[in-house]
Amino acid sequence: MALDGPDGGGKSTQAAALATWLRTRGLEVVTCRDPGGTSLGDRLRQILLDRNTVDLSLRAEMLLYMASRAQLVEEVIRPALARGQVVVSDRYLLANLVYQGYAGGLSIEEIGRVGLAATGQLLPDLTVVLDVPPDLARRRVGEARDRIEDRPLAYHAKVRDGFLEAARDSAKGTCSYYPAPIVVVDASAEPEVVSSRIQSEVERGLALGPRS
Amino acid sequence: MALDGPDGGGKSTQAAALATWLRTRGLEVVTCRDPGGTSLGDRLRQILLDRNTVDLSLRAEMLLYMASRAQLVEEVIRPALARGQVVVSDRYLLANLVYQGYAGGLSIEEIGRVGLAATGQLLPDLTVVLDVPPDLARRRVGEARDRIEDRPLAYHAKVRDGFLEAARDSAKGTCSYYPAPIVVVDASAEPEVVSSRIQSEVERGLALGPRS
Repeated sequence: MALDGPDGGGKSTQAAALATWLRTRGLEVVTCRDPGGTSLGDRLRQILLDRNTVDLSLRAEMLLYMASRAQLVEEVIRPALARGQVVVSDRYLLANLVYQGYAGGLSIEEIGRVGLAATGQLLPDLTVVLDVPPDLARRRVGEARDRIEDRPLAYHAKVRDGFLEAARDSAKGTCSYYPAPIVVVDASAEPEVVSSRIQSEVERGLALGPRS
Repeated sequence: MALDGPDGGGKSTQAAALATWLRTRGLEVVTCRDPGGTSLGDRLRQILLDRNTVDLSLRAEMLLYMASRAQLVEEVIRPALARGQVVVSDRYLLANLVYQGYAGGLSIEEIGRVGLAATGQLLPDLTVVLDVPPDLARRRVGEARDRIEDRPLAYHAKVRDGFLEAARDSAKGTCSYYPAPIVVVDASAEPEVVSSRIQSEVERGLALGPRS
């Protein structure tokens, strides 16, 4: 499954908490972050997030995320799934649809097609969007912003709207470019509260049995 | 326009010669190489061709070429075309269709779709394949082989067949994943002979007028 959403939603904290909680349910869990998670991915993440990377075209940016993800799927995610493990990924394909598509202006359908080619059509069983208003998100991110986080507030407002729209489309079954369940969790509360909201969604979405 | 084909076909030599010849015809010419040609592209080229890069998945490899090309199109090729210049590129999208598709086993249709998204549907007016048999190609490349050149002869034989098949499909109008003209030039002769063959194809393909 994937945690996604605007920057400042607490994804990495919540991914770790979710993994811990899933382990208490007796599941074997592998966590990863996208972009990253492999030697190639870490090199590409550095290019993508470094504020010294200038003049990167939006299409190249989207394709670098895809290259990192393709390697992550092949090297980490598919082998873990094949071993029966649960994968919790800090971001996944939905982020590209939103950041470069909804907010950036590239064709969402086109990004979706590239995404299916990059992942070999592997989408999460459940994508949890950690929703947070742009002003709170900006306060949480603070001054040490990466290249993407450093974009204007108006961009991040579009990013937030994009995630919410994708979730609505998904609920209506009209999200053809990301044919996988998306749920939204209000992530503006304290981390423990958000964690328990995520757990409820995961229990419902993945139909986990009662705690053994 | 693009020069493409198996390794060892003399593409970079011929690209330079073609540019010189086009300039004698009064055209302004920009040359580039793909992957490469930009700051990002050079970094990605290094990852792609370095024999120390191991375990790169075929999808990630394809997507890194695409990212490099997306940047090249936006930063170099489109601006040159907008200035009325002719672009001669040492390789382009056809190489991905052949190396990772025909020879590598990824879906050619899928690569084609990614390619159109990467380039914003910009294809060469003419693609000249410099055809050379694998054993001669290997002798020309010599011992200092990059990561791709270092693949087995059987792979390079498939690469050559792939380029020839793409050219045949293109002539029949059935190359939907690369809807642009492709011609084949026998590149096993001496460089000067090959140059004049390329010039003939370019004159015919681009309907250049008589030498002014």
